[in-house]
Amino acid sequence: LPAEKGAVQQGLASYYHDKYHGRTTASGERFEQTALSAAHRNLPFGSKVKVTNINNGRSVVVRINDRGPFVSGRIIDLSRRAFTHISNLSAGVIAVEVEVLSEP
Amino acid sequence: LPAEKGAVQQGLASYYHDKYHGRTTASGERFEQTALSAAHRNLPFGSKVKVTNINNGRSVVVRINDRGPFVSGRIIDLSRRAFTHISNLSAGVIAVEVEVLSEP
Repeated sequence: LPAEKGAVQQGLASYYHDKYHGRTTASGERFEQTALSAAHRNLPFGSKVKVTNINNGRSVVVRINDRGPFVSGRIIDLSRRAFTHISNLSAGVIAVEVEVLSEP
Repeated sequence: LPAEKGAVQQGLASYYHDKYHGRTTASGERFEQTALSAAHRNLPFGSKVKVTNINNGRSVVVRINDRGPFVSGRIIDLSRRAFTHISNLSAGVIAVEVEVLSEP
């Protein structure tokens, strides 16, 4: 996904397993399940993106502070809190559209 | 997705627009919205795959007879009939797991 404002990408979103809570992210920050953050493969740390659940239209704005996910087909890994804004956890993996709102 | 029995891939599935009904596919066959067929980027024509909707567990077996989709993040394009086996059309794009059942 080009790191330009307005760039859009569709793909799968998952959420972090609880075991990552409190660990250090690729950006050096601590990962918090209660924050509105996410991991992305290439967007610069500090980028703000809007993640929209394609099936229900709900969206959430998160800040990229980590690298991942590294599972094919998945384009973003959301903190538990961010995921629950747009889906129930039982869905596990959902179809999303990611739009770059701002770069750091 | 490796063309081997049992290979599995996750990603987005869409379905064909009606305008393709009756047109010739990349395999030379006519595309039928009422068939249980699908387009995939690399699996050999005639491959049988099971497509499972990750969010509701419903699945359908389709035969690959076309190339596509060519939208990033999407891994399979289902005939309308196949899509309705695992989701309602209004979802538009859904999270699926594709498993190779047999090769031609």
